[in-house]
Amino acid sequence: MGPVRAGDGPVKSGAGELEGVLEAARRIAVPTEYEERRLRTVAERVLRAVEEAFRGVEGHVRTTLEGSAAKGTWIRSRPEVDVFVHFSPGVGRELLEKMVVERGSRALEDIGASWRLRYADHPYVEGFLGDVTVNVVGCYATEPGKWLSPVDRTPYHTRYVLSRLDDRLRTEIRLAKAFMRGIGVYGAELRISGFSGYLTELLVLRFNGFLELLRDGSGWRPGKAIDMTGTFTEEELRALFPNSPLIVTDPVDRNRNVASAVSLTRFSEFVLASRLFLSSPSLSFFDPRPPFRGDVRPLLGCLMAVRLRDLPSLPADTLWGEVLKFCRSVERRLQREGFVVRRWAAESNGDEVLLLFDIESLELPPLELRVGPPVWLRNAEDFVGEHLRDQLTVAGPWVSGERLYVLKRRALRSARDLLLRWIERGEVSVPKDVAPSIRSAEVFEVTEERLRELRESGYSAFLDAFIDGRPPFLR
Amino acid sequence: MGPVRAGDGPVKSGAGELEGVLEAARRIAVPTEYEERRLRTVAERVLRAVEEAFRGVEGHVRTTLEGSAAKGTWIRSRPEVDVFVHFSPGVGRELLEKMVVERGSRALEDIGASWRLRYADHPYVEGFLGDVTVNVVGCYATEPGKWLSPVDRTPYHTRYVLSRLDDRLRTEIRLAKAFMRGIGVYGAELRISGFSGYLTELLVLRFNGFLELLRDGSGWRPGKAIDMTGTFTEEELRALFPNSPLIVTDPVDRNRNVASAVSLTRFSEFVLASRLFLSSPSLSFFDPRPPFRGDVRPLLGCLMAVRLRDLPSLPADTLWGEVLKFCRSVERRLQREGFVVRRWAAESNGDEVLLLFDIESLELPPLELRVGPPVWLRNAEDFVGEHLRDQLTVAGPWVSGERLYVLKRRALRSARDLLLRWIERGEVSVPKDVAPSIRSAEVFEVTEERLRELRESGYSAFLDAFIDGRPPFLR
Repeated sequence: MGPVRAGDGPVKSGAGELEGVLEAARRIAVPTEYEERRLRTVAERVLRAVEEAFRGVEGHVRTTLEGSAAKGTWIRSRPEVDVFVHFSPGVGRELLEKMVVERGSRALEDIGASWRLRYADHPYVEGFLGDVTVNVVGCYATEPGKWLSPVDRTPYHTRYVLSRLDDRLRTEIRLAKAFMRGIGVYGAELRISGFSGYLTELLVLRFNGFLELLRDGSGWRPGKAIDMTGTFTEEELRALFPNSPLIVTDPVDRNRNVASAVSLTRFSEFVLASRLFLSSPSLSFFDPRPPFRGDVRPLLGCLMAVRLRDLPSLPADTLWGEVLKFCRSVERRLQREGFVVRRWAAESNGDEVLLLFDIESLELPPLELRVGPPVWLRNAEDFVGEHLRDQLTVAGPWVSGERLYVLKRRALRSARDLLLRWIERGEVSVPKDVAPSIRSAEVFEVTEERLRELRESGYSAFLDAFIDGRPPFLR
Repeated sequence: MGPVRAGDGPVKSGAGELEGVLEAARRIAVPTEYEERRLRTVAERVLRAVEEAFRGVEGHVRTTLEGSAAKGTWIRSRPEVDVFVHFSPGVGRELLEKMVVERGSRALEDIGASWRLRYADHPYVEGFLGDVTVNVVGCYATEPGKWLSPVDRTPYHTRYVLSRLDDRLRTEIRLAKAFMRGIGVYGAELRISGFSGYLTELLVLRFNGFLELLRDGSGWRPGKAIDMTGTFTEEELRALFPNSPLIVTDPVDRNRNVASAVSLTRFSEFVLASRLFLSSPSLSFFDPRPPFRGDVRPLLGCLMAVRLRDLPSLPADTLWGEVLKFCRSVERRLQREGFVVRRWAAESNGDEVLLLFDIESLELPPLELRVGPPVWLRNAEDFVGEHLRDQLTVAGPWVSGERLYVLKRRALRSARDLLLRWIERGEVSVPKDVAPSIRSAEVFEVTEERLRELRESGYSAFLDAFIDGRPPFLR
């Protein structure tokens, strides 16, 4: 078996091929001069409008451009402008939030942008001007180490990266971000649990290039630790962040792991994609094919859907945190009952979330082997007494090794019926904000007809990706 | 839930009830005076005939009565006479065997007994005189510790037990043996892997009574060690016999575990039965009910039979050793393939053995989740390459946690077809003496029709017991 190729078609090996792929990738990642100019114009316009809106406001210190637009590290077709309004530490948090919402939205209206409120650690205003996304965020003007809110670090991040950038590295960062996006690991939000833009920038700076990052990354194992501050050994970092597959200290705050959001799965996907790209470079890592394997028939009888409706408006990470907690709890409960859960996934769509569980069989076998206690435990007699003349007992109890066993007829066998009962009885985790949606959830087997309905309800891409099963870089 | 009662019907609690049960049990266990007299008559007749047959034979030292007939510890309706022919150590093994076979059989013919050859460690002659079984066994007249064959210890065993017996203990031993037999753990042969007569005698001597043995036994845990020689601590014995659930040193050979044949299952059955008997005495522990639950329908689709025919004439333990090795190997292979083997059993019938496997489903699900290597292992790329565009791949490969997974269509799904292939390819253990029978074995699902056929072929009691599942003392 030769090296694996993601993507079909003839690909020639060697340095020329790699350079060709990178050249094409740069066209995907690096904005044109026209796009650069347009973003700069928008950024300056927003900055001026926000400055204007906050002029003379007590406690307002300054207004700055931050993030990828300030650093020139944004990737093509994803233009985004972050404007930060800095307040002096004496201003109360509530007041700060109120001002940002009121005056930030007014500033956006003044330049003709539509806007909506969004929530991270605290509320901010998200606006849209043409194809550019604009964020107006409030922060405190603090010294490092005296952070009052998580975003207070951002201006220092911008300064740190800018002080180390040159044009070559700017392009390398853009390649890296486009790669992360292409393979599906880009984004620190809980729904993705991948690599943030800032993390990607630090990694490229650390290894001094995109390919250099991939070369190192292709050899990473979970618990990989990179100190950007010259303070810790790898062992110390692993002890400090024992559950992180990837640890990258923040140059502006040595006690923080910039990669804390990265899940083991996203970490592993990055490692595998790095290896595959290096052994077989292809543009498909930057520009993945859509899901391919469209035949759902082999999976019929295996797919259970849970449709949560009327979810509350909450910060995305809060909502996803609860949804994922529910999913994991359902997975564990199904496994404990004897179901083989092969995989699951969740997708949001407006105020809905659709959960899919791929289960070896949606019906448990009619009989269940119950494993009892060792005969020398006190409750061995109880086990015998409970099952010996029970109506549902089919064979036994018997002794094998040191334990008791009994074969019982199952009262309830369908994953759907069991899940509904568990929700009702609180035998799965039902987090509070999503509880009403879970209690009224529609739980059903995905038949061909149901599949058609779901496709028509906006879940088509999600269903295709789930049925295909492959991450983007293996399509 | 009250204490468990094995057996139905009203049972009064208290000492009077226990005494009543023991009284009835004694009638089962202790021979009548008439039976005692008759056995003594038979024993003397056989002894004289054998003595006569070996008179003047060079190297012949003496002929003695051994075993339960000599000790008066045989249980009612199981009369058995063991006559030992002692040779001086200078006699070659082959000559000894030849003499025992030739002259032993002649002696039995002389008194009108039918006979056949049997094999344990070496051949002996088994005869039948009325309802009494007679064994003529050759041994060496050696000093303890200078054993030349395993049966050389037997005369010392007889002497040891006789020197410690009185009439009360004789009855207690008979009760204990009848209990062991009733609960299905009596017999050291591999097919049973239970308690030998000698072991039972030692245990009753040690605890000075039947109930006292049960009281102690009901608290045993695997690794229980009893030193009959005042030499070792429990810890030392466990270190000497690390895999034995029960260790009882031999008073005539301190380095030997008299309980080495006892399997963990038989050990545990004895512990459980002791507890249940003490909390709820019943005659059914001595005189078990036949299997009861006769309805096979819930098990249809779960039972696979393997019928081994034309098995060679071999010592029972040799044959069973190979058959059980094959069974365990099949169980492990089935489990590795994804089958849930709930239990299995084997029964012999003439030169045949029938194996039954109770499997959650005789067909594996159409799809199989294959677990691949962690992404950081060298062979991760091979796994991707092998499955990415394979015809049988239904979904994936994908990454979850640090590993790769893929969902495949199964080529072969039936337990029967797979087992036949494994036998053909040597993927299960095929011990040499039984190999021809395994290679030509009939493997089939037990349908109602097949069940009828098997019942008519002499497996009725075995099938009933298997379908019921309970050990005798829980029926």
